[in-house]
Amino acid sequence: MTRLRFALVVLLFTTIPVVATAAAAPANVAQWDRFEVTLPGPAEGNPFADVQLSAVFTQGKTSVTVKGFYDNGGTYRVRFMPQRQGAWRYVTRSNVAALNNQTGSFNAVAPRKGNPGPVVVKDSFSFAYASGAAYVPVGTTIYAMVHQEDPLLERTIASLAKAPFNKVRLCVFPKWYSYNHVEPPRPPFVGDGQGRFDYARPNPEFYQHLEKQIDRLAALGIEVDLILFHPYDENHWGFDRMGRENDERYLSYLLARLSSFHNVWWSMANEWDFVKRRTVEDWNRLFDLIAAEDPYRHLASIHNGTKFFDHHRAPISHTSVQHPDVRRLYAWRKEYGKPAVDDECEYEGNIEAPWGNITPQELTHRFWVGFVSGGFVGHGETYVAPDEVLWWARGGELRGQSPSRIAFLRKFIEEAGGLSPLPDQWPFDRTPAAKQGNRYVIYFGNHQPSIFTSFMTDQLVKDEPSLKTATWRFEILDTWNMTRTPIPGVHKGKFSVTLPGQPWMALVATPTK
Amino acid sequence: MTRLRFALVVLLFTTIPVVATAAAAPANVAQWDRFEVTLPGPAEGNPFADVQLSAVFTQGKTSVTVKGFYDNGGTYRVRFMPQRQGAWRYVTRSNVAALNNQTGSFNAVAPRKGNPGPVVVKDSFSFAYASGAAYVPVGTTIYAMVHQEDPLLERTIASLAKAPFNKVRLCVFPKWYSYNHVEPPRPPFVGDGQGRFDYARPNPEFYQHLEKQIDRLAALGIEVDLILFHPYDENHWGFDRMGRENDERYLSYLLARLSSFHNVWWSMANEWDFVKRRTVEDWNRLFDLIAAEDPYRHLASIHNGTKFFDHHRAPISHTSVQHPDVRRLYAWRKEYGKPAVDDECEYEGNIEAPWGNITPQELTHRFWVGFVSGGFVGHGETYVAPDEVLWWARGGELRGQSPSRIAFLRKFIEEAGGLSPLPDQWPFDRTPAAKQGNRYVIYFGNHQPSIFTSFMTDQLVKDEPSLKTATWRFEILDTWNMTRTPIPGVHKGKFSVTLPGQPWMALVATPTK
Repeated sequence: MTRLRFALVVLLFTTIPVVATAAAAPANVAQWDRFEVTLPGPAEGNPFADVQLSAVFTQGKTSVTVKGFYDNGGTYRVRFMPQRQGAWRYVTRSNVAALNNQTGSFNAVAPRKGNPGPVVVKDSFSFAYASGAAYVPVGTTIYAMVHQEDPLLERTIASLAKAPFNKVRLCVFPKWYSYNHVEPPRPPFVGDGQGRFDYARPNPEFYQHLEKQIDRLAALGIEVDLILFHPYDENHWGFDRMGRENDERYLSYLLARLSSFHNVWWSMANEWDFVKRRTVEDWNRLFDLIAAEDPYRHLASIHNGTKFFDHHRAPISHTSVQHPDVRRLYAWRKEYGKPAVDDECEYEGNIEAPWGNITPQELTHRFWVGFVSGGFVGHGETYVAPDEVLWWARGGELRGQSPSRIAFLRKFIEEAGGLSPLPDQWPFDRTPAAKQGNRYVIYFGNHQPSIFTSFMTDQLVKDEPSLKTATWRFEILDTWNMTRTPIPGVHKGKFSVTLPGQPWMALVATPTK
Repeated sequence: MTRLRFALVVLLFTTIPVVATAAAAPANVAQWDRFEVTLPGPAEGNPFADVQLSAVFTQGKTSVTVKGFYDNGGTYRVRFMPQRQGAWRYVTRSNVAALNNQTGSFNAVAPRKGNPGPVVVKDSFSFAYASGAAYVPVGTTIYAMVHQEDPLLERTIASLAKAPFNKVRLCVFPKWYSYNHVEPPRPPFVGDGQGRFDYARPNPEFYQHLEKQIDRLAALGIEVDLILFHPYDENHWGFDRMGRENDERYLSYLLARLSSFHNVWWSMANEWDFVKRRTVEDWNRLFDLIAAEDPYRHLASIHNGTKFFDHHRAPISHTSVQHPDVRRLYAWRKEYGKPAVDDECEYEGNIEAPWGNITPQELTHRFWVGFVSGGFVGHGETYVAPDEVLWWARGGELRGQSPSRIAFLRKFIEEAGGLSPLPDQWPFDRTPAAKQGNRYVIYFGNHQPSIFTSFMTDQLVKDEPSLKTATWRFEILDTWNMTRTPIPGVHKGKFSVTLPGQPWMALVATPTK
């Protein structure tokens, strides 16, 4: 039975959780997959508020406490993501006898291909999977993706399967905003059908739907940067003004359901400073709640409108900002000592709002500047459409010209790992440069040099004396036309080579000692 | 005789000075033209150092003291630019009897067409001619222009006659730098022919040549932003390390010769922070000297490498900076309370150095961003050339594609006067906007909106309640293709118009109450 279940998981090649009842034999669960305990319990009253349920998972001296949650129909669940292989045991705690003191165990086995674990911070400024596998976030934005009718959602997932993105920002709550005036098929709280909601009663049907999409995205190798709060409601549903107690109940329920998903990140808010009824203290309290109830320490941040949040604070793992000037990612790395992500540097599109109408050339340019500056840049697309389906809000199809260029960039980065920026001093204050493995890249952008000499390679290796007498090979990347052209020959000592004298080029310079 | 001389000046339509000997009858001199007293005196010794000469010019209760100077061949001159019309008298003072107590007079008459007076600061952040005539600086850079052989200089002047520029930055001293390794035909000091110079003996032949070029540029309507010191010498001639006494002698001599030229501005230094042997105190002392010996208070500033000088200080009339981010001109206006000029935002070209290889599209873009942000932007061109004649350094011909676009911009600005930037708040933090006369301009740059609605006009007139119900007319400027296309119709109340959805557009919005 155990072997069969494990085989089933492998065959499906997806993240269907291993479900255990209290009576089942120990299951095998792949490291970082989900182990789930299902328990029958009371359905009357408001089980969301009335019933307390948690479980302690132990392995040797390690113990991890997780909350359980009510999933309708008298069913309670406790989920757990094993971060270590080996035998785990658990015992439940509840104020309801039927749910209390239930015990069980399972074996956490080697990770499944396709699940390299959660993304974690690596070497202060980068990311990697917990398994150690490389991960460089190349994100996009589909805020209300999970609140669209199913046919549109299917089109979106199909688009993502072909797109270059390995992270998507999406909101738990629906949006009421330009190009977003759609009622969600499955609202996140139980409603009266008249547009009023009981904020003390989450809607498990919505969460089941959300979870299914998170798993499907995981199968596509996509991380979910889950936006927990946002201001795009303005009392249409009132999710932006539920009050402190409901905010905390909501978040606690969400953490109980979703923390065991290996591919979630917490984005506390979109444009936190535009949310009128919450203070910095409120956000900090909610961060404390995450720190207390997410035992896995998923990546967490908070996205701004015009005012940056203090990203120094725990458990903020990385800066997640909105800013058109991606060059500043270099400075934000230094300032916060954390990976720097510009999730919204303006979107490719042609709507009226300036944040949603830059050219594909400009967005591609910002990706290159941002990545070579040692940060990470996010994509969004906002082309006016007759059916009002804009990628950034609702999904559908990508129509822009930047995604193929972003794919070219991602392939380049994944070829040799993340980029370590060179100091932002002349000449690399004007044309940013980075070290990448044993090679260097200079991104020229709207600069168009026609010559490149040993003066520049001297600058590249200024802090690496062993490379002062290196032999160099060069390659030109045309970041817009997506071509790579080696410059013939090898170069040593005083030299000068001819460059295209065209914009949007990057130069890859590889030294040999 | 007087009438003849005046007629001659008008006929030549240039700024040949009115020359008076002590014995001549009172001349007529146009306001802001040059009046010159020529006196014979001693030629022996070092007249530059040994002879002191000045004159006091008086009109009623106003008196102006100016220094005279030695011009070789036993000839001394005192020059004066009348800033007021009417009768002026003068008396000379000298430590040499032949030059002392010489008196004379002249009449300052209505200004000559072609001389609207020196440029002055207007309304804190703009410029105008002293006559009140409009002047918006659209500058270029030809650092070593006056140190080239005459045929090249003639080509440069011919190019300027066709170019859109009404200001040129040029150095008094020659340059020894990449693309600049040329010995000057007329060095600024007397030399021994072996490359050594007597810094106590200026070379009048050089100054006569320089003055001729300043007058020729005046005839073309071009202001001369004269760079007094620079670091591009590195002891080749030693003009960058003459020592305090020689620096002051040099500057005092130059001020005596050139202050009476209506079209000069003082640029204390190029890249002041790259000049190794002078301190901030040295520069401040030299500014004090300018304040003391230029009675006309010509515009004065000092251009930086990487460190900004404190532009608050008198007699600094405007910021003159080097910086690639022209959007900051908006902030520098506020910070210094003075007109903000970015004289070096990087040049159109294709040389190796990043400051000299941006695309013509990018330089055009920076001009528009800078001007709409309420500042002023300078041009330079650095295309690699087989003969090593690059415009920025030596002149010759303009080969780039930005000058024609700059001409288009200048024509647009001169049509309705300078641009008053709107506050750098959303949405105009992303796409800058300005008021210009009774109309508004928004520069979209690398944004490409396809729609424009009354939401945006509401933002434009946020601080002008009387325009809240205005009727609007719109015109699209394609800043690269240099076309202007009216949007048909008039628009009032809630409206939406279609824009091209292409980059590099500006929108001119004209309300009628």
